[in-house]
Amino acid sequence: MHYPKAVKLVEVAPRDGLQNEKNFVPTATKIELVNRLARAGFQNVEAASFVSPKWVPQMADGDQVMAGIERLDGVVYSALTPNLRGFEAALAAGANEVVIFGAASEAFSQRNINCSIAESIERFIPVAQAAHAAKIRLRGSISCALGCPYQGETAIATVVDVVKRMQDLGVQEFDIADTIGVGTPLKTARLLQAVAEIIPLDRIAGHFHDTYGQALANILAALDVGVHIFHSSVAGLGGCPYAKGATGNVATEDVVYMLHGMGIHTGINLDDLVQTGAWISEQIGKPTNSRAGRALYLKNT
Amino acid sequence: MHYPKAVKLVEVAPRDGLQNEKNFVPTATKIELVNRLARAGFQNVEAASFVSPKWVPQMADGDQVMAGIERLDGVVYSALTPNLRGFEAALAAGANEVVIFGAASEAFSQRNINCSIAESIERFIPVAQAAHAAKIRLRGSISCALGCPYQGETAIATVVDVVKRMQDLGVQEFDIADTIGVGTPLKTARLLQAVAEIIPLDRIAGHFHDTYGQALANILAALDVGVHIFHSSVAGLGGCPYAKGATGNVATEDVVYMLHGMGIHTGINLDDLVQTGAWISEQIGKPTNSRAGRALYLKNT
Repeated sequence: MHYPKAVKLVEVAPRDGLQNEKNFVPTATKIELVNRLARAGFQNVEAASFVSPKWVPQMADGDQVMAGIERLDGVVYSALTPNLRGFEAALAAGANEVVIFGAASEAFSQRNINCSIAESIERFIPVAQAAHAAKIRLRGSISCALGCPYQGETAIATVVDVVKRMQDLGVQEFDIADTIGVGTPLKTARLLQAVAEIIPLDRIAGHFHDTYGQALANILAALDVGVHIFHSSVAGLGGCPYAKGATGNVATEDVVYMLHGMGIHTGINLDDLVQTGAWISEQIGKPTNSRAGRALYLKNT
Repeated sequence: MHYPKAVKLVEVAPRDGLQNEKNFVPTATKIELVNRLARAGFQNVEAASFVSPKWVPQMADGDQVMAGIERLDGVVYSALTPNLRGFEAALAAGANEVVIFGAASEAFSQRNINCSIAESIERFIPVAQAAHAAKIRLRGSISCALGCPYQGETAIATVVDVVKRMQDLGVQEFDIADTIGVGTPLKTARLLQAVAEIIPLDRIAGHFHDTYGQALANILAALDVGVHIFHSSVAGLGGCPYAKGATGNVATEDVVYMLHGMGIHTGINLDDLVQTGAWISEQIGKPTNSRAGRALYLKNT
């Protein structure tokens, strides 16, 4: 096994982690979460979403969050932008990177946004053009890359097709997302190898969910392929919208514990991270989903 | 990466998983647990412990459990035997395999049994001799192989030394146990490679705890070394005696989900396993610690 010497972690808790929380998380809490994560050493914090507040009321304060956070040098504060209106709001709010998204499943695309995969990505053309004009980094997220809640297995060719479509739009970083956490290591490795045939490794990110407990094993398999960008959520915030009560985003503490144990550099202070995980779990009144987070917290208190 | 085509799983829930439960689990429940696991397809079920009931009251009914279970052809029903008295009880109860144990940490050995590692293993000489005389399979469990709650890191040389001492006693299968779950994939692989230099791969078992969420990644790293025997506990039963509230034994459902997803044969029926995990969790009144178990149960109910 050969592994990268350093990994970039994209911390998604403030956006992907909080967006499904039922009770509104105060804007000040969101701001403090972003600030704590940036100070803990993340190079990229997904800080806000500029979707319609009708659809995601939890993210309605995105502009206030972006206005309230401190900006650390070298940290990319990214935002989800579903359309041009969202992009303009993200631009005005000072996002350093905007995220567009598509599913690698026709069934998912039809059920969720009532159009084909191809159409769903074409709709992002204006956002992509505006991002290039404004010289803002463009990231593309591809969901259901290892399975779909409606149609089961996802073909590697479908993921590769979505990657190519996003590449045509000028996407600079490609998130290969196992949205429902069904992936296992060999399938993960094969998929990422196929993506790596058309996209350089430093533009491919693995976004794994721990719904079936597979996320760290999948990250290990991805590292072996040479992938060295991963998404994770402090305290495993986020849950799984397709299986109530199940685990969602892989917990950042678990990922950092593994990477540091392997001698892989992340730039992240694990102690700070554990404190932040314990703090945000208390703020939202839920136990942490991070095993390393819980064990380290218990050990140090 | 190269992986074995088949894996033997040793299911430890009835012994290792239940032994720290505060409330006494009825003998009938223990018997049903063993029976369900054997029927689900395990080749080896750790069914009982013949330690003093003063020390582990939960295991006081070992002889009744062994007397009450049905015996499936080809299934090894194993028992922990701390001394000759325990061995004789296990023999009388019809155990197919007995387990002796030692720690790869002087601090752990001194604190727990008030003697050196070397002395602790010498004490098993009568058990080993009796096992050979009775033609009963002898397994050796080596705890703290990747770290110790009292002295931190464990040197690979110490583990190898314990393995050699157990080899001298005629041990036929060696459990390399990460008792406190601190191991990460590279360290795990290096340790198992060192053990594999003196012991054939088909006699080495990986026993990983998920306290820091690392167990599946460690199993993946171990598979890459060629190890193809692993221990696990249905529903992740067992907890961590060194960090109250933290996770202990890796959940069998998560392991089987990964192995089957990788096309690796286990002989285990995952659906039956998930039902058994849900059932025993209800019996002891605790939520499952298995992520795959929870997700599959939610999906199918």
